[in-house]
Amino acid sequence: MDKTITLDYGSGGRKTASLIHELILPAFGNRYLSTLSDGAVLPGAESLVFSTDSFVVSPLFFPGGSIGKLAICGTLNDVAMAGGEPRYISLSLVIEEGFETHLLENILEDAAAEVRKAGVFVVTGDTKVVEKGSCDGVFINTAGIGVLKRPGLSPAAMKSGDAVLVSGPLGNHGMTILLARHPQLLEGDLRSDCANLAPLAAALYSLGEDLKVLRDPTRGGLATVLSELAESAQLGMEIREKDVPVDPSVRAACEILGMDPLYSANEGKLIAVVSADRAQEALALLRRFPEGEKAAIIGEICEDHPGLPVLRTPWGSSRILTALAGAQFPRIC
Amino acid sequence: MDKTITLDYGSGGRKTASLIHELILPAFGNRYLSTLSDGAVLPGAESLVFSTDSFVVSPLFFPGGSIGKLAICGTLNDVAMAGGEPRYISLSLVIEEGFETHLLENILEDAAAEVRKAGVFVVTGDTKVVEKGSCDGVFINTAGIGVLKRPGLSPAAMKSGDAVLVSGPLGNHGMTILLARHPQLLEGDLRSDCANLAPLAAALYSLGEDLKVLRDPTRGGLATVLSELAESAQLGMEIREKDVPVDPSVRAACEILGMDPLYSANEGKLIAVVSADRAQEALALLRRFPEGEKAAIIGEICEDHPGLPVLRTPWGSSRILTALAGAQFPRIC
Repeated sequence: MDKTITLDYGSGGRKTASLIHELILPAFGNRYLSTLSDGAVLPGAESLVFSTDSFVVSPLFFPGGSIGKLAICGTLNDVAMAGGEPRYISLSLVIEEGFETHLLENILEDAAAEVRKAGVFVVTGDTKVVEKGSCDGVFINTAGIGVLKRPGLSPAAMKSGDAVLVSGPLGNHGMTILLARHPQLLEGDLRSDCANLAPLAAALYSLGEDLKVLRDPTRGGLATVLSELAESAQLGMEIREKDVPVDPSVRAACEILGMDPLYSANEGKLIAVVSADRAQEALALLRRFPEGEKAAIIGEICEDHPGLPVLRTPWGSSRILTALAGAQFPRIC
Repeated sequence: MDKTITLDYGSGGRKTASLIHELILPAFGNRYLSTLSDGAVLPGAESLVFSTDSFVVSPLFFPGGSIGKLAICGTLNDVAMAGGEPRYISLSLVIEEGFETHLLENILEDAAAEVRKAGVFVVTGDTKVVEKGSCDGVFINTAGIGVLKRPGLSPAAMKSGDAVLVSGPLGNHGMTILLARHPQLLEGDLRSDCANLAPLAAALYSLGEDLKVLRDPTRGGLATVLSELAESAQLGMEIREKDVPVDPSVRAACEILGMDPLYSANEGKLIAVVSADRAQEALALLRRFPEGEKAAIIGEICEDHPGLPVLRTPWGSSRILTALAGAQFPRIC
């Protein structure tokens, strides 16, 4: 750890991992937390999934969403990725003194619309107001409780030959936020992919044990999540670049700005690892949803180069996908 | 609602109530949220209690505690006040760029110490880092899940004749934070009462249906909570000022600074309403704990002046305890 906390520690990449391993786990480590998945699985009369996220996205409103929509979708997705069917949400606001009430109302309406669509309930909450200059507009924390529907999702279940799927084109959210914050960089028509993935996840649960692991590639993007999965399982991955879906507008913006869509954040995409012989079925399940119509099988798990996902380009070269080293830019969620 | 959010909306008093009634309930209202208790009671194979709080206390370290200790105790207490035995906690950090790592470590150690003492688990979390100037040091959100042990706690269960108890002297936390922030105001030797109240609450659950309601008088203090309870039940309360415990150091600081200890925040005190014939037993249960050794019966529920708690002074005068109108000072939790 460095002597002070830099923005990199919030990147979702290697510095975030070092903060978790050097400060959080020594303080709180236990059998639930140490799995480091998107949500904790809790035993009981009915097994539950529990997850939380604080949202500090800037700007608060962006094409395709707002901090309100994101705060609900983000937590629904984390619960779903851990095998849970989301049921209950807590919502806690930290508001800067002087924030316009009608904007707060818009944010809450966006959140409420997602809550209604998802059929869940916001059941408890909190509101704090801090002096002007002590926070940036509004921060929202949500925590979510779901009922465990697919126990045992884990990188440890992955095997050589398993297929790696993504539910759609990558990088839209991160590039949308970048352009919303710096419109002078580029004129573009990007929209965040911010969406509730719980219905897609529930469809995949029907694969039973042939569904090995689910992750939503938010901060750090696809590359960081694949790197974490490969390292955790000590298996390799072969990813075919030509099969990784990226919208032309996102690709163009990334090329002009020197960004990599595989490291750009997503807020409405999932990664699934599935047994080879159910991969086509998984693909068909995802494609039934508008959010999954561009789903693709992008590669396979392998025994070579354990711990490392390797991206093969169409022209025969390859590169290793490592976890994001530092923040591309902060506050994308 | 005003056109912008002022600090008063975070006071825990009337403005906070207006925000809840005019923005939160219209957006999210449902049978769980509408009880407006410290935690939501969720049905299921095993009934659960779910609660959340965001902590923005300033300063981050104060006599008797820190934001880390407060973030755990605050949520344990909310779960316990709703009838739950706390089990699992989520912990989410928003950190300002440049924050010193060793201070973060101290905060997490304080939180971990409370977690261990309480026998609960931090099972999931999140870390965000925002640019320098976009938050004030560290904000922490915790959410807690407990198993429901005492169903049906509600102001609606209160009856004329019931006794009103407090678990100890009032106002310590609020006055400690005030003096920690403005040491030039007064030299004093105050300590926050920040403590986990779940063991005290669990002892009171043994009273069964004779325990009517539990609340922890945090923001807005004793007066605000009594006012809310009386209004909710449309019953009156007679409170004897001479029986309301206030530490001499807190009383002195309040007198000098023109503050009212009954409106000053507490972070380790509970209010219990109990059937008259079990009041002495409840008092004995509380006094078994170091945190409850100065517990007291401070008054009774009555049918007169419905909706209003009335404070009787030793010299025969009286005043109505209303909910806190505006923030005494912000960011006490």
